[in-house]
Amino acid sequence: MPVLVVGSIALDSIKTPTSEHHKLLGGSASYASVAASFFGPVNLVGVIGNDFPDKHKQLFASRKIDLAGLELADGETFAWSGEYEVNMNNRKTLSVALNVFEKFEPKLPEAYRATPYVLLGNIAPSLQRMVCKQVVKPKFVVADTMDLWISIAREDLVELLKEVDMLILNDSEAKQLTEDDNLIRAGKKIVAMGPRYVAVKKGEHGCLLFGKNGEFFSTGAFPLETIHDPTGAGDCFAGGFIGHLARTDDTSFGNLKEAVVQGSLVASFCCEEFSLRRLEKLTAEDIVERRKAFAAYVA
Amino acid sequence: MPVLVVGSIALDSIKTPTSEHHKLLGGSASYASVAASFFGPVNLVGVIGNDFPDKHKQLFASRKIDLAGLELADGETFAWSGEYEVNMNNRKTLSVALNVFEKFEPKLPEAYRATPYVLLGNIAPSLQRMVCKQVVKPKFVVADTMDLWISIAREDLVELLKEVDMLILNDSEAKQLTEDDNLIRAGKKIVAMGPRYVAVKKGEHGCLLFGKNGEFFSTGAFPLETIHDPTGAGDCFAGGFIGHLARTDDTSFGNLKEAVVQGSLVASFCCEEFSLRRLEKLTAEDIVERRKAFAAYVA
Repeated sequence: MPVLVVGSIALDSIKTPTSEHHKLLGGSASYASVAASFFGPVNLVGVIGNDFPDKHKQLFASRKIDLAGLELADGETFAWSGEYEVNMNNRKTLSVALNVFEKFEPKLPEAYRATPYVLLGNIAPSLQRMVCKQVVKPKFVVADTMDLWISIAREDLVELLKEVDMLILNDSEAKQLTEDDNLIRAGKKIVAMGPRYVAVKKGEHGCLLFGKNGEFFSTGAFPLETIHDPTGAGDCFAGGFIGHLARTDDTSFGNLKEAVVQGSLVASFCCEEFSLRRLEKLTAEDIVERRKAFAAYVA
Repeated sequence: MPVLVVGSIALDSIKTPTSEHHKLLGGSASYASVAASFFGPVNLVGVIGNDFPDKHKQLFASRKIDLAGLELADGETFAWSGEYEVNMNNRKTLSVALNVFEKFEPKLPEAYRATPYVLLGNIAPSLQRMVCKQVVKPKFVVADTMDLWISIAREDLVELLKEVDMLILNDSEAKQLTEDDNLIRAGKKIVAMGPRYVAVKKGEHGCLLFGKNGEFFSTGAFPLETIHDPTGAGDCFAGGFIGHLARTDDTSFGNLKEAVVQGSLVASFCCEEFSLRRLEKLTAEDIVERRKAFAAYVA
């Protein structure tokens, strides 16, 4: 089954103590669509500017991602630049330029409207809601979000929660959204706000999955001795998650658990190199191999 | 198979916003021995003063803990007092009085020396090493420790690591001991320092287990919506861990994994009430029931 991924497409510039990288591929839809592509066909909706490098488009194409929904707008692509500290653990944002993303309104090509599995990548909840209005009878809609939207667009986000099957966010965001510092209570409060399920990401500590009927699942992260760049890991988690659901066409809680694990594993690869560099070299077989190793680590 | 537990026995005074409790049972050996007692026979070694309440001794007796190694010294029992903040999440130490514990040197009754499973509860590594010298051909020796000993008794601790089969400590302590901020690397460094295994506790995020030959296991914590008092949870983890090993008399890595889960579950009960109050009411059946629920949460 195909997956629809909507989100941001960005050009990232990254400065490290030893090097500088410009116009790296970034943005929630870029990471998530490539992550999902290891599981099956992907329809991508996003916006790019005139400066978007052909090689990035070629990466999407090489992953067989459908680009009929990739809008080209006059202007520059959404741009982010940041700097990493010596130990590579912290990064700070140097600049953000929305550019063509500022006026972006997701428009689904007619052929995309019936895509059964939908990932609303991390963008403003008002844009995510626009997508909800355009899809026709989806089987499962997942929304990703972040602290920024909880702070500045809480009302939209709360409305969105009534329209999606699942929300993905990290532990501090779950606490922020519910104003509860116990993560178990926070998870339960979020499913009470609308979505059937919520996945709470905890970085190196793994992920919790909560269901409206008291379902609960906890999994660890794949152990990594070196984390080169956690940027995009959350988007990869979401992409891998929806990709697995679509491939198996099974939305039972048992299969959602497996989707959480698959998403975590794709995210673990993402952290191993800058930008999408690890994902460019990744194969579906690599994920299968890591799944086997992980099975021994958690049981 | 019996378990030997050596550690501190304390009387805790706790002040909360609404109440005050005095002379509560506390100390690493108290928690650990009671935790281990749900799995089989326990030999306890520790010291108490003249003021030690009979009811606490009765609690040990009711759990069939052997008290031949419980030394009565002239003076007062090791005493700790602390205060909890309104949300019960933080507590601060008001006073610590070592009292009879100051001159404590663990002396094993002859009948204890051949106890096959040994838990060196959280006390100074120099005292833990005294126990190592007195035991005869133990099958498995586990040492628990804390940040204080890493800070003030690192040399003793490093020597101890060469004499035990396993170390238990929490995530920040593992980073402190190895001066490495990546937990996976830290775990590997600790097993390289001597012990065959190390368990790294992560509180609400569960526990990691590392083996010298690259073995690795990750498990989540039992989900708790309310944590009344995390005091003693680490000691209960250690007690449940060694208790399970002794009951099954199996030190394979597969069984160490199960021991980590059993230890985590006993620790989860401990957090549900003040002091040992939850453990006083606990039954072996409660642990079995929670194990079943947990199985569904992690697979």
